[in-house]
Amino acid sequence: MNSLISLDLISQPTCHPDEFLDYVHESILKCIEKNSDGKLRVMALKHFETKGKMLRPLFIRDLALSFNLDLGLVIPWAVTCELLHSATLIHDDLQDGDELRRGQPTTWKEYGPEQAINLGDFFLIIAPQTMILSHTPCKNELLHLFTVMSSRIVAGQVEEFDLNKFEGKKNLFEKYLICISGKTSSLFSGLAIGVGITAGISQEALQFLESIFFQLGHIFQIQDDILDFYGDKQKGLRGSDIREGKLSFLVAHHLERNPEDFEIFASILKKKRADTTDDDLKIIEQLFHEKNNLDHCLDHLERRVDDLLSHSFFETNEILFKVVNTFIAKVLVPINEISRKQINS
Amino acid sequence: MNSLISLDLISQPTCHPDEFLDYVHESILKCIEKNSDGKLRVMALKHFETKGKMLRPLFIRDLALSFNLDLGLVIPWAVTCELLHSATLIHDDLQDGDELRRGQPTTWKEYGPEQAINLGDFFLIIAPQTMILSHTPCKNELLHLFTVMSSRIVAGQVEEFDLNKFEGKKNLFEKYLICISGKTSSLFSGLAIGVGITAGISQEALQFLESIFFQLGHIFQIQDDILDFYGDKQKGLRGSDIREGKLSFLVAHHLERNPEDFEIFASILKKKRADTTDDDLKIIEQLFHEKNNLDHCLDHLERRVDDLLSHSFFETNEILFKVVNTFIAKVLVPINEISRKQINS
Repeated sequence: MNSLISLDLISQPTCHPDEFLDYVHESILKCIEKNSDGKLRVMALKHFETKGKMLRPLFIRDLALSFNLDLGLVIPWAVTCELLHSATLIHDDLQDGDELRRGQPTTWKEYGPEQAINLGDFFLIIAPQTMILSHTPCKNELLHLFTVMSSRIVAGQVEEFDLNKFEGKKNLFEKYLICISGKTSSLFSGLAIGVGITAGISQEALQFLESIFFQLGHIFQIQDDILDFYGDKQKGLRGSDIREGKLSFLVAHHLERNPEDFEIFASILKKKRADTTDDDLKIIEQLFHEKNNLDHCLDHLERRVDDLLSHSFFETNEILFKVVNTFIAKVLVPINEISRKQINS
Repeated sequence: MNSLISLDLISQPTCHPDEFLDYVHESILKCIEKNSDGKLRVMALKHFETKGKMLRPLFIRDLALSFNLDLGLVIPWAVTCELLHSATLIHDDLQDGDELRRGQPTTWKEYGPEQAINLGDFFLIIAPQTMILSHTPCKNELLHLFTVMSSRIVAGQVEEFDLNKFEGKKNLFEKYLICISGKTSSLFSGLAIGVGITAGISQEALQFLESIFFQLGHIFQIQDDILDFYGDKQKGLRGSDIREGKLSFLVAHHLERNPEDFEIFASILKKKRADTTDDDLKIIEQLFHEKNNLDHCLDHLERRVDDLLSHSFFETNEILFKVVNTFIAKVLVPINEISRKQINS
């Protein structure tokens, strides 16, 4: 077996973020080409034609630098996490009926649901291969971590599907948090633990890392949910979470404070995607407006950010604080614009 | 990390097949319980409530014995292969619209398409975990093999979907063989190579093993296709391949010999499942009958079996010959009944 990646390629421990992402991207393409031909290869390469933000690999890079790790050591792990993330996106889009991603037709929309299942399966399968073929330190632990965190993501998907049936109004916000813990925070905390394991940090430090990145996953998902309704995402229709009948952060938070609105929300969210009208969205927007939901949601998000950044672990870990702070600042740019508009209006 | 399996459990290298399958089954259940709770666990355990034939683990056992391997060493590999097989069944049934499996409603039929995607993903993800946690020899090579053979299975699925569009009549039989090479033979040859690697046999012997089990995969799929139309499978409707519009062995073989029938076959196979009538099946049965298709198919299968069993590699490997011969004899019991009926009618 030959390693897919020459670790010597990256001798500069502080290589530029773009350079790092190029290595990860190239390694993903190599892995795809090695394991496919014909139509499967075409579909797989097409998915990676647009790179996307590659937030997770970027994260792995910044974290690795904070631990003084040679970046070459975490490229296979970044490849694994990005392929896993892509697999979940492809299956998610199919499950949710999303038609656009990064401004392009989603896999199921372009090639049909059967092929979207196949492509997601393919990415899940090859996700750990670059790691298996590499000389990554602690490979066995990372492979185990991969199976554990991926399982949790799937478990989150399973729960989300049931939650979105709106069968009961109890503890909706708590259930919402359980869902995003699985589908988003598992990958965030998992990728961080992976870097920590590679760096050989203590069990105690690993636990802090897990907790910090778990919270960061929540923050990320909450801003994503807010942007789905109030932002300008390239996912096609604004408010697609509502159209898909998803119990998003905005809805869960609104209903937590205003349980009397449950019936009207349920009646709209239970509608099939194609039957949800622009007027339905306006009704929800109006209810959000009347009860100041966006303000409350932005406050909630701000509190979470403050809580996280005042985590005791950061007191002795200035570099990690900088990594997390920078990430949050970057992620929250669009949200801050919304906040400003709120204040000015 | 603790091993999921105490290898000491199986100290008898010749433990009874049922005992071996029980260990594999129990290890699968443990792996499921370790990685899931709530609804995901319920769905996963439900899938393994009926054990099925567990042909692939049985195969691994018989092969391991032929190499004088301690059976405890191949249990993790058997768990991996069976979980992979289960994942493909669950996604397959959804892709094909099959409503029954082993006499029970399929996962998508019982829990919906979204949850069937989730459950298949879960099994794909945890498939290698028992191996990762075990002290299996040559673990890294087996993990790599797992990703390679799984990729090939997915590639077969991708091609099959295109093949079943009946867009051209050229080389249908060749294309059929390419599909089943991916979706069936990859797993057969892969599981055998896995046992060979564990036993530390030579590269040359591994290549023979691969070729033998690749052919065995073809034989297995061909008999399965014949039984779908002429046998009594527990999959629900007889002729479900035709109803699903699949280019099965019977159809591919018929059209290879009788290309003039392409249009009529395509017109029936292109129909949606719900629109395919019993009369459509009778038309196809009549065409098969007029052109003696079943006879030709059974001859073809017999030739394949004869070719395989006269493989030069067996000359010096009597024990392996016995393993393969026993497997073929077992698999072909229902087919032999059909053959007898043919002769008597």
